[in-house]
Amino acid sequence: MQLINLGKSSSKGHYSAGVIAGNLLFVSGMLSIDLNTGVPCNGGIREHMLMSLNNVKLVLDQANLALENVVQCRIYTTDVEFWNDINEIYSEFFGIHKPARVVVPVPKLHYGCLVEIECVAEVY
Amino acid sequence: MQLINLGKSSSKGHYSAGVIAGNLLFVSGMLSIDLNTGVPCNGGIREHMLMSLNNVKLVLDQANLALENVVQCRIYTTDVEFWNDINEIYSEFFGIHKPARVVVPVPKLHYGCLVEIECVAEVY
Amino acid sequence: MQLINLGKSSSKGHYSAGVIAGNLLFVSGMLSIDLNTGVPCNGGIREHMLMSLNNVKLVLDQANLALENVVQCRIYTTDVEFWNDINEIYSEFFGIHKPARVVVPVPKLHYGCLVEIECVAEVY
Repeated sequence: MQLINLGKSSSKGHYSAGVIAGNLLFVSGMLSIDLNTGVPCNGGIREHMLMSLNNVKLVLDQANLALENVVQCRIYTTDVEFWNDINEIYSEFFGIHKPARVVVPVPKLHYGCLVEIECVAEVY
Repeated sequence: MQLINLGKSSSKGHYSAGVIAGNLLFVSGMLSIDLNTGVPCNGGIREHMLMSLNNVKLVLDQANLALENVVQCRIYTTDVEFWNDINEIYSEFFGIHKPARVVVPVPKLHYGCLVEIECVAEVY
Repeated sequence: MQLINLGKSSSKGHYSAGVIAGNLLFVSGMLSIDLNTGVPCNGGIREHMLMSLNNVKLVLDQANLALENVVQCRIYTTDVEFWNDINEIYSEFFGIHKPARVVVPVPKLHYGCLVEIECVAEVY
C-alpha cells in the first residue's frame, strides 16, 4: 500500500489524498475548493466542476498517473439539474477517454460546494 | 484497461458502460431507463429495480461475465422506505449469490428514476 | 471470490458482509446498529460513528485483516454538519493510518441511523 499526499493541502481531514493498493489508485473525494487556501469555489457549476476535476488531477499527477489511467469516476452533486453542465465540462476535461461513471445527487456538500469527485485509476 | 460499451445505448453521457482494469470490471451507474429509447421506467419501485438490474446485467453480458461474478453492488434510491421491495427484487435477481452491498438514499435521480445501480465484478 | 459473513448478524438483507476478489476486500455498508439485535444506536453522532466503525472492524476481523489494511473508506451521513465529530472519532479510531476517504451526505438512512460506512481493504 502506498499513500499519496498533496504537501500543500489545507485539509484538516484524517485522510490521504490517494492510496494505491496493487494496481489501483483510490482517490479521495475532492471538493471544489482551492486546496492551498481551503476556500471553496465562488463560481457556478461549471467552475465548481473544473476545480474539483483539477484537484483530482493533482492527486493523479502526484502518483505519476494521467487522466487516461482513470477507470471510474463518481461525481456527487447537490442538484441533478446540473447534469448537462457537469457532463459538458467533464467531457472537455477527459477528451476521448471515457471512464466508467456514476453521478450521485446529494442534499448538501461540505463548505457549500456544488460537486465532489472521487475516482479509481489503474497503475501500470 | 478495456472499455465495455453497449452499442444500442441512447445515453448522451461521457462514459463507458463498464471499464475493466486488471481483474475487476467497474460498471457505470445504471438508471431504471430503457437503454434503447432513453425512456425512464413508468412503473413502481419493483419495476424500476428490475429494469436497473437488467441494465447492469447487459453490461456484464457484454463483458462475458455473469451475476456470480459480481463482487459488490451499490444501489442508490430516492426513498429508503423502498428498502423491503428493493431487497426482495434484488434477492430474486441474484439468487443464491450475495455480493457485498450498499444501499444509498439520495434526494432525486436523473430522469425521475427511483433507483440507480452500479457494481464491481471479478474478471477471471 | 471469497464471501465473508458475520455468523451473528441479524440482517435480513441479501448481501455478504464482505467479499474478497483478488487482493481486495469490499466491505458492505455498515450501519450504526447493534449487529446482534438489529437495534440502531440510540446515542449522538459520536456513538453512531463508533458503532458503525466497530461493525466495519468486525468484518475486517472476520477476514483476518486489520485497520491498517483499509485502503478507502466511504462515510454516508445524514448531516454534513456532523463533519467535525465524524472526523474526530474516525481519526481516533484509525490512529496514524489514513485511508483514502469520501464523506457523502444523504437525506436519510435506514433505521434512522446517522452514519453508514463501507470500505475497501487490501488482502496480502
